[in-house]
Amino acid sequence: MPENREVIDNPRSDRVRRVNDLADRRQRQRHGRFLIEGPQCAREAVACRPDALMDLYIEVGPGDGLQPVSPAVAAIRDQARSQAPGVYVHYVTSRVMQAISKNAQGIVGVGSLEAMRDDLDALAADWGEGAEAAADDNETLIAALWQVRDPGNAGAVIRAADAAGCQAALLVDECVDPFNPKVLRATAGSIFHIPVLPVSTDEFFVRCRGWELPVLAADIYGAHGRQPQALPDFLARSPSGAAGRAVLFGNEARGLPEEVLARVDAIVSIPIYGRAESLNLATSAAVMLYALAMSSRLERM
Amino acid sequence: MPENREVIDNPRSDRVRRVNDLADRRQRQRHGRFLIEGPQCAREAVACRPDALMDLYIEVGPGDGLQPVSPAVAAIRDQARSQAPGVYVHYVTSRVMQAISKNAQGIVGVGSLEAMRDDLDALAADWGEGAEAAADDNETLIAALWQVRDPGNAGAVIRAADAAGCQAALLVDECVDPFNPKVLRATAGSIFHIPVLPVSTDEFFVRCRGWELPVLAADIYGAHGRQPQALPDFLARSPSGAAGRAVLFGNEARGLPEEVLARVDAIVSIPIYGRAESLNLATSAAVMLYALAMSSRLERM
Repeated sequence: MPENREVIDNPRSDRVRRVNDLADRRQRQRHGRFLIEGPQCAREAVACRPDALMDLYIEVGPGDGLQPVSPAVAAIRDQARSQAPGVYVHYVTSRVMQAISKNAQGIVGVGSLEAMRDDLDALAADWGEGAEAAADDNETLIAALWQVRDPGNAGAVIRAADAAGCQAALLVDECVDPFNPKVLRATAGSIFHIPVLPVSTDEFFVRCRGWELPVLAADIYGAHGRQPQALPDFLARSPSGAAGRAVLFGNEARGLPEEVLARVDAIVSIPIYGRAESLNLATSAAVMLYALAMSSRLERM
Repeated sequence: MPENREVIDNPRSDRVRRVNDLADRRQRQRHGRFLIEGPQCAREAVACRPDALMDLYIEVGPGDGLQPVSPAVAAIRDQARSQAPGVYVHYVTSRVMQAISKNAQGIVGVGSLEAMRDDLDALAADWGEGAEAAADDNETLIAALWQVRDPGNAGAVIRAADAAGCQAALLVDECVDPFNPKVLRATAGSIFHIPVLPVSTDEFFVRCRGWELPVLAADIYGAHGRQPQALPDFLARSPSGAAGRAVLFGNEARGLPEEVLARVDAIVSIPIYGRAESLNLATSAAVMLYALAMSSRLERM
């Protein structure tokens, strides 16, 4: 692992500005890089996607050599030394780290967009492998977000999808950029665990048909003439050993429009048993994805 | 409904300062009042707890009489006129609203802490009524938070508890104040739907025993010599028609300590099927409470 043992102390240097610039989408696209803020995301990048990690910036205390500011950060540096030999490590002072990111907690990374780019064909190939390996373990479950614009919600859904065992998260039709630093932080590192891919609405439906994955829309209103099924009813009626699903979640404010609902195989809503008006998108996604994941595993027990 | 038709335009008036002060816990306790920010919470206060609502501050545009700044705010004012005859309505300019709250979106309310105060005996009496009325509908389900300090998490759990049909949320052993404005906003009005009560750890366990409610701890680590059961296994093994439960969630960073886990009837964890390290507290609570609520309803179908 290359290491620059000279501590960077100038918050106005070109290098510092270039890293800070990655908070901006145009700069990310121009440089092909993205920002990874904080120990949680940096740790998962080192552990799971060292191929996509280019640099680590590590904050050190004043006058104590190259001692990272926290044991958590030191542990990530040590793991990078053994597992991510291509990553370049830089040491920075507190004021430089402040200039790079307000959410660093002692460490930021810079990743390569190119290395993170998955394509839909590669995705299907992965499931092919996964399906064999996991025939008696788990089924294909895909989370899809339609026009979701809020970074915190998008990141939280990606995290919940990962936890619930989804094989991928698809960002359908102009969602927020998953490499927006707020999205990335909200994924808590899950963006380094499962493929997260943008796709158009048409391609989403064409692909799901090709993959033989029924599309289930999470929606409380339903479409014209088509009431949503309540989630527990849907689970009770589902054939055991169902062949996997893609679950589509709508925009955080507007839900899913008629023309999208018209193309899905089922519309399912989470029942509100109390007097709350609704659940937010991230909470709904976690409840829905876990209910499906647990139910399909129970059926095969 | 009393209404002061003179628009308040002085952001430095004593009245404005006193309302703004309610963001501070000591001022809330001193005055026995709390702040209700934004249309969502104000609407639920008017609809569900008009008895606890004292004042509404409504932002009006410049020079157009008493026209609220948005149709949503106007609708809440109109509902208060018909359903909350004791509420005093004040009109304020944009700069006064800015001085009162940055999260007003055109409306804030002031509530009475005294009116919101529930006691644990009254709670049990309510369930008594509820249990009869709901014998074939739903079972007692109580959400309990232990030493939860983060306002956003606490509020989101209260909202999820309401949505999942919980009869109450208990704040065990020095949690964040539920009348902290951030908690209140995160409940999205659910604090006006179900009782939210502080209780000590000892009293929590004594009461649950008295109510014959088994306590289930949501915890991924378990206690010394006692592994948690995975949620789907717990659901599969639960006797149908179980007599309700209290579910205890730990501190967002530290979980639940040994001495608390030693007193619970079961320890249950949400399985992580993918590679995510964990779910956050609010997401875990929603998944756990909904799994229990849906499962107990399915069993009785």
